[in-house]
Amino acid sequence: MTEAFDVVDVIRTKRDCQELSPEQIAWVIDAYTRGVVGDEQMAALNMAVFLNGMNRREIVDWTQAMINSGDKMSFDSLSKPTVDKHSTGGVGDKITLPLGPLVSSFGVAVPQLSGRGLGHTGGTLDKLESIPGWKAEVSNSRLMEILEDNGAVVAAAGAGLAPADKKIYALRDITATVDSIPLIASSIMSKKIAEGTSALVLDVKVGSGAFMKDLDQARELAQTMVDLGEDAGVRTRAVLSDMTIPLGRTIGNALEVREAVEVLAGGGPSDVVELTCALASDMLELAGMPDADVAAALQDGRAMDSWRAMISAQGGDPDAALPQAQHTHDICASQDGYITKLDALALGVGSWRLGAGRARKEDPVQATAGIEIHTGYGEKVSRGQKIVTLHTDTPDRFERAMEVITAGIDIGMEKPAERILIHERIY
Amino acid sequence: MTEAFDVVDVIRTKRDCQELSPEQIAWVIDAYTRGVVGDEQMAALNMAVFLNGMNRREIVDWTQAMINSGDKMSFDSLSKPTVDKHSTGGVGDKITLPLGPLVSSFGVAVPQLSGRGLGHTGGTLDKLESIPGWKAEVSNSRLMEILEDNGAVVAAAGAGLAPADKKIYALRDITATVDSIPLIASSIMSKKIAEGTSALVLDVKVGSGAFMKDLDQARELAQTMVDLGEDAGVRTRAVLSDMTIPLGRTIGNALEVREAVEVLAGGGPSDVVELTCALASDMLELAGMPDADVAAALQDGRAMDSWRAMISAQGGDPDAALPQAQHTHDICASQDGYITKLDALALGVGSWRLGAGRARKEDPVQATAGIEIHTGYGEKVSRGQKIVTLHTDTPDRFERAMEVITAGIDIGMEKPAERILIHERIY
Repeated sequence: MTEAFDVVDVIRTKRDCQELSPEQIAWVIDAYTRGVVGDEQMAALNMAVFLNGMNRREIVDWTQAMINSGDKMSFDSLSKPTVDKHSTGGVGDKITLPLGPLVSSFGVAVPQLSGRGLGHTGGTLDKLESIPGWKAEVSNSRLMEILEDNGAVVAAAGAGLAPADKKIYALRDITATVDSIPLIASSIMSKKIAEGTSALVLDVKVGSGAFMKDLDQARELAQTMVDLGEDAGVRTRAVLSDMTIPLGRTIGNALEVREAVEVLAGGGPSDVVELTCALASDMLELAGMPDADVAAALQDGRAMDSWRAMISAQGGDPDAALPQAQHTHDICASQDGYITKLDALALGVGSWRLGAGRARKEDPVQATAGIEIHTGYGEKVSRGQKIVTLHTDTPDRFERAMEVITAGIDIGMEKPAERILIHERIY
Repeated sequence: MTEAFDVVDVIRTKRDCQELSPEQIAWVIDAYTRGVVGDEQMAALNMAVFLNGMNRREIVDWTQAMINSGDKMSFDSLSKPTVDKHSTGGVGDKITLPLGPLVSSFGVAVPQLSGRGLGHTGGTLDKLESIPGWKAEVSNSRLMEILEDNGAVVAAAGAGLAPADKKIYALRDITATVDSIPLIASSIMSKKIAEGTSALVLDVKVGSGAFMKDLDQARELAQTMVDLGEDAGVRTRAVLSDMTIPLGRTIGNALEVREAVEVLAGGGPSDVVELTCALASDMLELAGMPDADVAAALQDGRAMDSWRAMISAQGGDPDAALPQAQHTHDICASQDGYITKLDALALGVGSWRLGAGRARKEDPVQATAGIEIHTGYGEKVSRGQKIVTLHTDTPDRFERAMEVITAGIDIGMEKPAERILIHERIY
């Protein structure tokens, strides 16, 4: 079989800082999906892209080629608008859990298709699987039924969506080419565009616990993704939010579900409530409801009703008790003062070491492992007072987790500067 | 089994323009040889090295790690000094053929261990295999015998020398990471140092038909290799020689052997004689004979005797007729004038298309295919006069070969500037 291009020429083009043509990009992504281009060749190309970048046109073509590698879904047959949300991932980021039910309680469909996380905790699917009975696998027809009926779904993305992205992502993970803006943007947006949502809000995290460590990088990533979405006909906006400090008071799987339910019951930590409401307002504005009172829907039980319906629709029991860790360990303050550092990365790695996250795709996660935060950033603490409690089913993990967690917490004499939770919006 | 490093950290180090530690380099080369580091990971690392470079210390460590991946030879038991030569490869570069016998006729051992070429023609082994009966495979003990006796050997390098280099070279070939100075220098020098020669002359080619297209690059490559050799205790020098125009009057396998025999008989094209004598003088100087009269040894038959002994020692018949192509085709001048361009790359690609070279390691080469040059660069030509004759056993190859060859030849009205064959020496 004759191929349209020589892969060595394609790699050389990007290696030499030249622009890849639309035809070269379409071919190389397709040929890699077919197995004609080898892993070692795509790895070399990814590294060249990492170091030499891609321009806007190349990123659009790269994303489109990944979309074309698989199926495209459509929600056009639904009677209501669809709007989706994607977070670039952070420590304690359980926002998806209350957000979907909250937005869908306004009559909007929120189809959130997720993969398994490789992060510090499991992904949203792993978190929801700590609810007895809940199943991530939903057939396509059942998905449409739930969306039409209740409106909120979190489900496993089908293997048919952007298979090129799945293959390339797995390769990037083992070749140090994950944190590249063109590659992150095209990976996220190829899946979201293939899913067929008509509007999308992106939560781009900034700080130690996020891919993007500074605001400039985060802004560039957000703008790249917003442009990709708009170019493909998806109304897209992005929020840049803080990830120097974990979100909320829990990090883990079941622990985060518990906190999400508190928010849906009208309570919960103020940062989780603030970000949930901000993203919900943005999503509803894109869905044509700029004046929706989302705070009221958390207070009056509408969001909670939608949550219960969402969990039940996938076999879960919203009233069942969540699993609890067999072992806990408290870390207490060694002096009086204020919590001046509560580092997202340190607590993320700590949760991972406790068993909340996975190292490889095929590993299980502990539903119960994680960290509970008693004294948050900027709060006063007295000597001997509990700052955090560590949870795990395997107590031999405490030691290595504590090493990194204690290094991530500082107590100082002066109250630190207030956290800025939402930096800006990108349209 | 616990590994000393995480390969993703090693790749990330070079990706982020940081220096690889001696331990990281030793580990990654060893782990790749063992198969613990995958091809996709080494490909990503090679591309990062290609784009971000390595400093002198890193290149020394990289080379040493490749040497350590396999066997080391020693010629210490010989009663005479050893000196080797390596060329970075050019079109019509048959210099090794007369050079080994010429130098060995002065009582010096010249052990030239070669691989199969992936170039425009076959490598030196392929060229010699056009001599009826000649065999490239020589056992280690027989190799020492021939060196002690006659002194000149061209043989297939054993698989045990620098196996990491063999694996990495095959990978670079398919991932557009061949023409990187640190990677070329470490590849060549790891093999030469592992071979155990005590002195080495490098012929670094510059111009369209060479890896290095300009003099600055060639100088950098030469200096890098000379430093590597000297650091490893091998007396090393380099000659920078022209490769904008093919060497001599023939390009191919049997065709080049014929020309080499002409040189050994005291004739042959002046550029081949000049470069052969220059390299021979350098080699003999490194072997302690700065005053050797190499031109005399070509004239009085000593070099020819040594050639005949070298060919016979490996089963070849120096008196047998060389194979000739079944089909030839002349390209003639379309006007009067001077040959102002005779491009090495064009004629190299043309020879390759005629069947003289291979595309993949496992392909055969045609012994008879290639190009004979009748009117050289700067020479006068009349309309209708033969410029080159193309040779092949498969005449359907003429058309595509002619396309590129005719584009590589220009005839002008003014005599062009004289070719500078030897640019400089690097110590």
